[in-house]
Amino acid sequence: MQTLSVNLDDRSYPIHIGSQILCDSDRLSGLLSLAIKGKQVALFTNSLVNNLYGSAVYQALSGYSVDVFEMGDGEAHKSLDTYNQAINFLMEKRHNRTTCLIALGGGVVGDLTGFVAATYQRGVDFIQIPTTLLAQVDSSVGGKTAVNHSRGKNMIGAFHQPKKVVIDIDCLSSLPTRQYAAGLAEVVKYGIIADAKFFAFLEEHRQGLMDKDEQILAQIIMRSCEIKSEVVAADEKESGVRAVLNYGHTFAHAIENLTGYGEWLHGEAVSIGMVMATDFSERSYLLPQGARLRVERLLEDLGLPIALREPLSAEKMLQAMGMDKKTTDGQLRLVVADAIGEARITGDFDADLLKAVLSEYCE
Amino acid sequence: MQTLSVNLDDRSYPIHIGSQILCDSDRLSGLLSLAIKGKQVALFTNSLVNNLYGSAVYQALSGYSVDVFEMGDGEAHKSLDTYNQAINFLMEKRHNRTTCLIALGGGVVGDLTGFVAATYQRGVDFIQIPTTLLAQVDSSVGGKTAVNHSRGKNMIGAFHQPKKVVIDIDCLSSLPTRQYAAGLAEVVKYGIIADAKFFAFLEEHRQGLMDKDEQILAQIIMRSCEIKSEVVAADEKESGVRAVLNYGHTFAHAIENLTGYGEWLHGEAVSIGMVMATDFSERSYLLPQGARLRVERLLEDLGLPIALREPLSAEKMLQAMGMDKKTTDGQLRLVVADAIGEARITGDFDADLLKAVLSEYCE
Repeated sequence: MQTLSVNLDDRSYPIHIGSQILCDSDRLSGLLSLAIKGKQVALFTNSLVNNLYGSAVYQALSGYSVDVFEMGDGEAHKSLDTYNQAINFLMEKRHNRTTCLIALGGGVVGDLTGFVAATYQRGVDFIQIPTTLLAQVDSSVGGKTAVNHSRGKNMIGAFHQPKKVVIDIDCLSSLPTRQYAAGLAEVVKYGIIADAKFFAFLEEHRQGLMDKDEQILAQIIMRSCEIKSEVVAADEKESGVRAVLNYGHTFAHAIENLTGYGEWLHGEAVSIGMVMATDFSERSYLLPQGARLRVERLLEDLGLPIALREPLSAEKMLQAMGMDKKTTDGQLRLVVADAIGEARITGDFDADLLKAVLSEYCE
Repeated sequence: MQTLSVNLDDRSYPIHIGSQILCDSDRLSGLLSLAIKGKQVALFTNSLVNNLYGSAVYQALSGYSVDVFEMGDGEAHKSLDTYNQAINFLMEKRHNRTTCLIALGGGVVGDLTGFVAATYQRGVDFIQIPTTLLAQVDSSVGGKTAVNHSRGKNMIGAFHQPKKVVIDIDCLSSLPTRQYAAGLAEVVKYGIIADAKFFAFLEEHRQGLMDKDEQILAQIIMRSCEIKSEVVAADEKESGVRAVLNYGHTFAHAIENLTGYGEWLHGEAVSIGMVMATDFSERSYLLPQGARLRVERLLEDLGLPIALREPLSAEKMLQAMGMDKKTTDGQLRLVVADAIGEARITGDFDADLLKAVLSEYCE
């Protein structure tokens, strides 16, 4: 097991990455109990994950009073409705400020649990046990919590850091291929925005990635969490550099918004969004020729979509992108790549070029 | 005009206290524009306050795009329902992360606006323009934001500091006597918990207070904000000393909860709660004889209730107090006074004494 630290002063916390953690009750119990200050715990999960790992986590919490909140599976449940249900649940079970919420599941469970933790009685502790690749390399790290609004993804939320993140690589063996690939999209993103060598490593090991090779998984999860931790430590509340983590995401959020959360997994939308962002970066003469092809090929080889299935209106895409959080006074800001391994956010770009890219991919 | 600073590192902010601020458009405009970073502003208020001061504030914001969100008046509107409406409103009006919310009104408007600001797009700026005495001396300062849950007051919320607080004493002339008195309850509280001289000053000037003497008002609002700012700066997130600000509040929250928000104003419930807390402090042999009588007399002379109108079950009170946020692992914690001017929080008290006090006041 390896341990990384997210350095945020009094909000710093460890990320433990390893295998055979959930199946080892004593080990898990030791890791969790260090981060729980009271006697009450609320385990947030969905029925699918609960069936797979619920009893293991429950067993590791034998010293605590544990209540289990089971929510629906999928992005549609990351809603104010589920949030209200969760708050009612905690009130009914009389959880107080010393409670600790544990998010056992993917990004939907983690984001919702985090937002409940951020706001229940003005903030309680929570621990992330991410069980999908996407959650392990992205959403469980960094303290972004949120629920969706019908008019936009993650529009309601807070920055609230977990007390600890426990990543068991073995969870990925039970993960459906499509969800696994969706997580790889974010891994590819780290290569594009911050580490050309890492990108090349992914290209080199695409077969190992498809085979879920344990050694390679350990390496890519570790490196992804490292990159994310460093960016988050430099800019916790996304006033600047943290925005590069959203490479392709402004496009992706618009796609998810227009197709209704559900058609595309978040990582799939990010894959398509990164293709658009990369094409746009190339057309703006920032990105050297060839880079776009490398990005597209890698994503495709990893089983990810690189184009929409059904046409969308480019006009509506542009509108939906304007509602993305990364706008400043109505001014759309985009993350662009100058090279593989280098990204930055900019509001200074050619709107016609953007429209041309959208027309090509959307209609 | 006097200016105080709440010292919280990068979350520090000024409190401006004076008269003839809202009626002076240029002056107000100058104060507000320093704290607004974008071009969009959302003015949160209720119809009553909007009628009185809405146009003055609107006029001072002539350089900005302003949307007005009018909510219902009263504690019942500090709800998740109103919160949802407010979020929908901001989304419809396409407010982005650079927006600034302005809370113009009493504690209900301020607490709700603050919670919306804390969570809209993971946090936007907000400014407090408190128009009631209670909001001016208490709820607008310190960054506690919240909405109520049917099972408990302020159960959903966040710590989110305003960018600025603008207090115009002239607002108090339009404030109904009952609401004005409710604000004085919190002023008396500051004397009990932190400043015996201030308590004596209040006793000495009870007539001036009843007459809303402008000089005396300026002094008591200033001193109340000073005490609150110091406590908040020492313990922003209420992990310790900040809890003393809740003197009488555990009782008060239970009263409000059991009588349904509406029968008592918050300050009135706090007045009755402080009488209970003071009696309890005396019976625990902490508080010298005579102090309780001084507290009761001052509250009564200021037009505040010192007893319940209708009996309540002591058993239910105790239960409701157990649901208060100041419990630790089911262990009720109470703020007690050792003297006028000195309070502390404790979990070490005689439960039978507490029951005796509750029986006397409730049944």
